[in-house]
Amino acid sequence: ARSYSITLLPGDGIGPEVVAVAKDVLSVAGSKEGVELRFQEMLMGGAALDAAGVPLPDETLAAARASDAILLGAIGGYKWDNNEKHLKPETGLLNIRAGLGVFANLRPATVLPQLVDASTLKKEVAEGVDIMVVRELTGGIYFGKPRGFGTNDKGEETGFNTEIYSVAEIDRIARVAFEVARKRGGKLCSVDKANVLEASMLWRKRVTAIASEFPDVELSHMYVDNAAMQLVRNPKQFDTIVTNNIFGDILSDEASMITGSIGMLPSASVGESGPGLFEPIHGSAPDIAGQDKANPLATILSAAMLLKYGLGVESAAKRIEAAVTETLDNGFRTGDIHSPGTLYLHCSLLAHQSRVL
Amino acid sequence: ARSYSITLLPGDGIGPEVVAVAKDVLSVAGSKEGVELRFQEMLMGGAALDAAGVPLPDETLAAARASDAILLGAIGGYKWDNNEKHLKPETGLLNIRAGLGVFANLRPATVLPQLVDASTLKKEVAEGVDIMVVRELTGGIYFGKPRGFGTNDKGEETGFNTEIYSVAEIDRIARVAFEVARKRGGKLCSVDKANVLEASMLWRKRVTAIASEFPDVELSHMYVDNAAMQLVRNPKQFDTIVTNNIFGDILSDEASMITGSIGMLPSASVGESGPGLFEPIHGSAPDIAGQDKANPLATILSAAMLLKYGLGVESAAKRIEAAVTETLDNGFRTGDIHSPGTLYLHCSLLAHQSRVL
Ligand SMILES: CC(C)[C@H](C(=O)O)[C@@H](O)C(=O)O
Ligand SMILES: CC(C)[C@H](C(=O)O)[C@@H](O)C(=O)O
Repeated sequence: ARSYSITLLPGDGIGPEVVAVAKDVLSVAGSKEGVELRFQEMLMGGAALDAAGVPLPDETLAAARASDAILLGAIGGYKWDNNEKHLKPETGLLNIRAGLGVFANLRPATVLPQLVDASTLKKEVAEGVDIMVVRELTGGIYFGKPRGFGTNDKGEETGFNTEIYSVAEIDRIARVAFEVARKRGGKLCSVDKANVLEASMLWRKRVTAIASEFPDVELSHMYVDNAAMQLVRNPKQFDTIVTNNIFGDILSDEASMITGSIGMLPSASVGESGPGLFEPIHGSAPDIAGQDKANPLATILSAAMLLKYGLGVESAAKRIEAAVTETLDNGFRTGDIHSPGTLYLHCSLLAHQSRVL
Repeated sequence: ARSYSITLLPGDGIGPEVVAVAKDVLSVAGSKEGVELRFQEMLMGGAALDAAGVPLPDETLAAARASDAILLGAIGGYKWDNNEKHLKPETGLLNIRAGLGVFANLRPATVLPQLVDASTLKKEVAEGVDIMVVRELTGGIYFGKPRGFGTNDKGEETGFNTEIYSVAEIDRIARVAFEVARKRGGKLCSVDKANVLEASMLWRKRVTAIASEFPDVELSHMYVDNAAMQLVRNPKQFDTIVTNNIFGDILSDEASMITGSIGMLPSASVGESGPGLFEPIHGSAPDIAGQDKANPLATILSAAMLLKYGLGVESAAKRIEAAVTETLDNGFRTGDIHSPGTLYLHCSLLAHQSRVL
């Protein structure tokens, strides 16, 4: 029988609750397909800061690297918000992304027919939205050097960061995005600010060059300010979007909110080789942590992505997706997506429903 | 009688049409208040590139500097899209902003009761939205150095830009934003990415420090990705937003699209002293240029901002705003905001309506 090792990183806030139930779902889905999954839980984020004094202990990164895939809950919370940079939970997240080399972050924003009313957009605008944002995850202004604090020629204190991309970094994320677009609607929109930024000019030039390897994919370019508008005006015009780290951070969150149900949205971060990192796009929601109220479906769908993109066990992924659809069709909802005529369930019960395959 | 000189920069695409009609409106509104306005038209953007080979001729900047206020139409078009950086229309815009020192860009995003249906957001979400985005306009990644193209230690070509803010730059934009918030709803939300970027950490620190000068304004902080979501989820939670140049570019466009009528939205860019720059937030719309179809109201409302913020003639500004309201109440619309039961007018005719004071 095939056997894989999964590193679980529950993290902070609602992270532990949603990872616990997603782990069950994963086990069951795997076993139905004759796949054995072994789990090990490691510390990350605020939990690691409290227990070990750093947001990403060496053992955690080593264990993650040695495993076949990683499932992350969420990190962060008010408690650590004023920590210095190297002691922020977020720094742990950035370091594990860099440490694993997962440069491609896939963030679907799909409006499910059962949940179209959850969107703040008019039904006819939201209906049928199905966008995949491919965000560059290990480069750009998040990691560029020089960075820090200094003094300018007037003697004033400054804070600075460097947005930088190399041809190799752009080419590899562009190829992933073209591959993704090819398997979806065949349309790729590259988002940049090439009318102002040199980093974006190189981005546009290289994405255009890589396009010749994918003649079946239709490439377009859009400025980031316009993209932020078009996502509100007519999100259905988009199929696959590829963009840099910071624009991807902003636009993928905007796109996810357009679906109205960010408690439903998974993500996958993958590299050229080595294990991928799978996580819900929502945060740690400290205000509802420990109350069994969180929506577990984003993490459960992240587990499905883990099976599909991380382990290549697509059949098990399909089982999970089908179970989630059935759960929604049956009218079961957590509080965040609850509406008149549906049935309010707690996190663990909803997960249990989605487990029945 | 008071007398002021106005530099008109019609620019490209629909720019000349909307500036021409806004000029008429300005004249009439001024004369009703006993204010004489003298106009001089100068070249900028693609028009300047075609006529003079540069996007911002020295005479244009000199004339603008010597005048009391500047009204800009729009710049850019497909024709110049592939120009080198120093020959892009956009570079002319960046240079005039820097040349005038207009570091504070005020971008209102208001959902007018007459146009609430134009928003793609549900009526109950869009209704009553009234946001002012205060964007830092002459610093950050738009202007930071070093910038350009280089080679990294692997010998690969790179493109790079520098996001940098000094204490003085942050303090002055923060003060403008607090002043604006004080005159509005008394709430200021500062948007940054202080969990990742040093430039944002300094931003947050200084905005927090300046807050002590404005005890009557309620300050909050939000990460830019969350702000992009919250604008879609519940835009009414915002009163005044202050943010850096690039985040302001993205978020103000997103906010404007939430109103559903970007053909209606003006903007003002002001400095510590010297003339301000007033322009519609929409672009040059080359596809409808020269057809007398453009919505002139954004430029007409920019003219009102010019009178109010640029010249301090608030009574004349009020006349324009009242005329625009009346025009909308009478059911007159251009194509972009036309709906059943309203009357379709061309640009010049709609402007004429808004001129009757
Ligand atoms: C927590 C933060 C560092 C992170 C990011 O900006 O990448 C988050 O917003 C995300 O999008 O995963
Ligand atoms: C045209 C472009 C350079 C400009 C900007 O990014 O500032 C525009 O998008 C704006 O917001 O005024």
